[in-house]
Amino acid sequence: MDRFTFENPVFATYAVAATLMILKGVGMSWLTVVRMMQVNGGFRSPEDIRKTPFNPEPSPQQLAPNEYVDRIRRIQLNDLESLPYFLVAGLLFVLTDPSLALARWLFYGFVATRLLHFVAYFTAQTHDLRATLWTPGSLIVIFMTFRTLLAALGH
Amino acid sequence: MDRFTFENPVFATYAVAATLMILKGVGMSWLTVVRMMQVNGGFRSPEDIRKTPFNPEPSPQQLAPNEYVDRIRRIQLNDLESLPYFLVAGLLFVLTDPSLALARWLFYGFVATRLLHFVAYFTAQTHDLRATLWTPGSLIVIFMTFRTLLAALGH
Amino acid sequence: MDRFTFENPVFATYAVAATLMILKGVGMSWLTVVRMMQVNGGFRSPEDIRKTPFNPEPSPQQLAPNEYVDRIRRIQLNDLESLPYFLVAGLLFVLTDPSLALARWLFYGFVATRLLHFVAYFTAQTHDLRATLWTPGSLIVIFMTFRTLLAALGH
Repeated sequence: MDRFTFENPVFATYAVAATLMILKGVGMSWLTVVRMMQVNGGFRSPEDIRKTPFNPEPSPQQLAPNEYVDRIRRIQLNDLESLPYFLVAGLLFVLTDPSLALARWLFYGFVATRLLHFVAYFTAQTHDLRATLWTPGSLIVIFMTFRTLLAALGH
Repeated sequence: MDRFTFENPVFATYAVAATLMILKGVGMSWLTVVRMMQVNGGFRSPEDIRKTPFNPEPSPQQLAPNEYVDRIRRIQLNDLESLPYFLVAGLLFVLTDPSLALARWLFYGFVATRLLHFVAYFTAQTHDLRATLWTPGSLIVIFMTFRTLLAALGH
Repeated sequence: MDRFTFENPVFATYAVAATLMILKGVGMSWLTVVRMMQVNGGFRSPEDIRKTPFNPEPSPQQLAPNEYVDRIRRIQLNDLESLPYFLVAGLLFVLTDPSLALARWLFYGFVATRLLHFVAYFTAQTHDLRATLWTPGSLIVIFMTFRTLLAALGH
């Protein structure tokens, strides 16, 4: 049976969650671009303070660390530490034939808590709240991965 | 129908693009190694300035930031913010049965602009040019991901 | 023939290796958390020194770089530069129908050397040893990727 098809509701659920997370992840790059343009800084390469049409009045200050931009970079790095593992773990988990209800809880639970984590990080809520919203997503990845490992070892 | 097979020309196209990008991504690690050996520095861990056969005359200077090495690290980080999402987005996009022509434009367009982006970054061209070469790849990932999301939601 | 199923021993081998590596990768986030709690520092966002139940006596020192925590962050970044490429390269390599013996050498060889690399990095062994243990995993990814590229081009 081919499980990697949109006709498989568990896979379709995965695909919705995965694409939403990819769009979220890619969105961080664009948000970094927007903020670099807003503050006209937060650059990282020496050549970025060369005079160009987009940067008519360069200054060394543009290479200084900029918290407004760096916050998005930290969020982006947090995504990189999490989303690629989720994307692969979720794909493999589909092959364990979970119930649709369980798949929905796990996939959409990951999406929902990652989006809330983003809001908390973006608006600079406390470390405690951020950690609380980060935890479920990580536990979901661990749970799916363990289940897949057991299924793979059982064959 | 099994779509994840080299007999499917859309998938074969994806596989060529994906493997080229993985080789490119992994190549950045080796380029970092080469440059660290060239400058005998750009290290990051305290133990890297311990005396060893490969580092017979260690000095604290070897741990200082080194632009020649750090440029490759920035390129590598830029890859990490982009390639994993492309690899998964492209794989899922295959399941939407795009025309071969469209698949070629998107997959090879991504590869071509990422390689040009690398050349621009590597040779320290202006931020404007680098941004111009980064943008198509990001838009291609977003386009493929949206199409996949719509296909998944339509089932 | 459906190759992405646990009934395919090559795929099951991949799935075991992939899930072990995902658990390892996700484990780095938890190890960072443990160490941040141990030293009550190594934080990175300004809001992390706000007074909360988990941080009743905040101080600016908590935002200073902390080698004990940063070591895990470097290990984690090293994972990000390697594991996502392995996860996708390995999945695609399954489609080239390698012998089970070859697949086991490559997949488990990657897992074994990455775990040894972790031990070496974690216990601050020499750069030489760390590099020696890093190299096989990278070569395995390159080998699998080349084989997949040739297979994809041959169709």
